[in-house]
Amino acid sequence: MSAMRTLLHMPFDPSSRFIRLVLAEKGVPARLAETRPHDPDSDLTRFNPAMTLPVLIDEPPTGGEIAISPAGAIAEYIEETQGGGALMPATSAGRAETRRLIAWFESKFDSEVNALIVRRRIDGQLKTHRWNDPEPIGKMQQAMIWHLDYISYLLERRQWLAGDRLTVADLAAAAHLSVSDYFGFVPWPDFRDLRDWYARMKSRASMRPILADRLDGVTAAAHYSNPDF
Amino acid sequence: MSAMRTLLHMPFDPSSRFIRLVLAEKGVPARLAETRPHDPDSDLTRFNPAMTLPVLIDEPPTGGEIAISPAGAIAEYIEETQGGGALMPATSAGRAETRRLIAWFESKFDSEVNALIVRRRIDGQLKTHRWNDPEPIGKMQQAMIWHLDYISYLLERRQWLAGDRLTVADLAAAAHLSVSDYFGFVPWPDFRDLRDWYARMKSRASMRPILADRLDGVTAAAHYSNPDF
Repeated sequence: MSAMRTLLHMPFDPSSRFIRLVLAEKGVPARLAETRPHDPDSDLTRFNPAMTLPVLIDEPPTGGEIAISPAGAIAEYIEETQGGGALMPATSAGRAETRRLIAWFESKFDSEVNALIVRRRIDGQLKTHRWNDPEPIGKMQQAMIWHLDYISYLLERRQWLAGDRLTVADLAAAAHLSVSDYFGFVPWPDFRDLRDWYARMKSRASMRPILADRLDGVTAAAHYSNPDF
Repeated sequence: MSAMRTLLHMPFDPSSRFIRLVLAEKGVPARLAETRPHDPDSDLTRFNPAMTLPVLIDEPPTGGEIAISPAGAIAEYIEETQGGGALMPATSAGRAETRRLIAWFESKFDSEVNALIVRRRIDGQLKTHRWNDPEPIGKMQQAMIWHLDYISYLLERRQWLAGDRLTVADLAAAAHLSVSDYFGFVPWPDFRDLRDWYARMKSRASMRPILADRLDGVTAAAHYSNPDF
C-alpha cells in the first residue's frame, strides 16, 4: 500500500489554495497538512529548502518519495500524472498562455496586491510575523484596480482566462482573488465580466472547501462564500 | 514565408540569457531584439503587459502571432515545439525537479543575489534606473554562499543539476551565475564541484555568445570567459 499523497499548505496562502483547487478539479485525493514555515517544529526545510508553500509529497511509479514545489510545478505534475478532465490547453500556444497567466498571479499579483496587506494581516493573525509600519492601503487599491482592469480585458475577449475553456490559469486567479475577497478588497460592482467569471468559479464544487475556510479573529466579507453576489 | 522568430532581451538580463542558451542548445534560430523596458520607444507593453524580459514572439502553426513570457514558459514552449536533443527529463518526477530548479534561479537566486547588486549596477550603467542607497555587499555575499552551498549539495549527488543529464535547469543556473561572475562575485575556489560543473557549461558552444557580451564601462572578471579557471 502506498503512503497517502500529502500537500503541505496553509488555508489562507493563495498558492496553497491554487493547488487545492487543482487537486479537487482533477479528483485527486491528498492529505492536507497545515504547515507554518517559521514554526521551529515544521520540517518544511527537508521537503523544500526554499521554505515556501505549497509542497506536494508523492510516491511516483518510478519509486522513491518526491517533494514538488512551487505551485506551478505541482500543477504541471498533477496534470501530467493524473487522468480526469484536462486543465491545460491542447496546443503549445495555449499552454504558453496558461503558463504566462499562472506566473502572473503567482508572482505579479501576489507581490503587487496580496503581499501588501492581505499576507501581512494573515501573518499578524497567525503570529508568524509582526508588521509595524502602516498598511499601504492606497497603493494596494491602485494595484488591485490595475490588475482587475487587465483580467477584465482578457475576459472581454475570452470565456475563460486563457481561452475558451477552464484551465489552471482560472484556478490560480480564483485562488489569489479569493484571499483578497475574504478581506473585502475586491470592488466587484465596477467589474461585471470579472464578477460573472468569479460567480461561475464560486459555483464549482472545487471552490467549496476554500469558501468554507475561516480565519480566527477576522470576519469574512458578507458575500465571500455566496455565488450570487 | 513566415516572419522570423524574435526574442526581446537585454544582454545582461539573467532570464534573457537563460532563453538565449535554450535557443542555442536546441539549434533554434531567433532574431535578438535588445529592448529596454523603461525606454519610452519600447513597445514591450504590447507584447508583455508585465513589462518583464525576455519575451519570445513566434508564429505557431495554428496561426497568428503569439508573445510568450516569462522565461519558464518560453523554455517549455521551445522544448515542446522544437526537435533536437531533449532539455527536459523523460519522467514527470524529473520534470518536476527541473521546474523546481528553474523557479529557484528565476525567482529565489535572482531576488536574493542578483537583484541586490548586479542588477543595480547594470541599471546604473544603462541609465535605466538610479540607485542612491549603499550596495548591500555583505548581505549579497552571504546569500551567494548559501546558494552556492545548496547547488554544491545537489552536484555532490548528481552529474547535472536536475539529474544525470543536462536540462534547462543547468541553463537557468548558468545564466544567472554568469551575470554575477562577470562582476567577479562568485568565489569559485571554495566550491570545486560547482566550478567543475561551470567549466563544463562554459565549454559548450551555447555559452560562447554570452561569454562574449561586454558591458560598457565595466571590465569583466579576468576568468569570465575562460573555461579553464
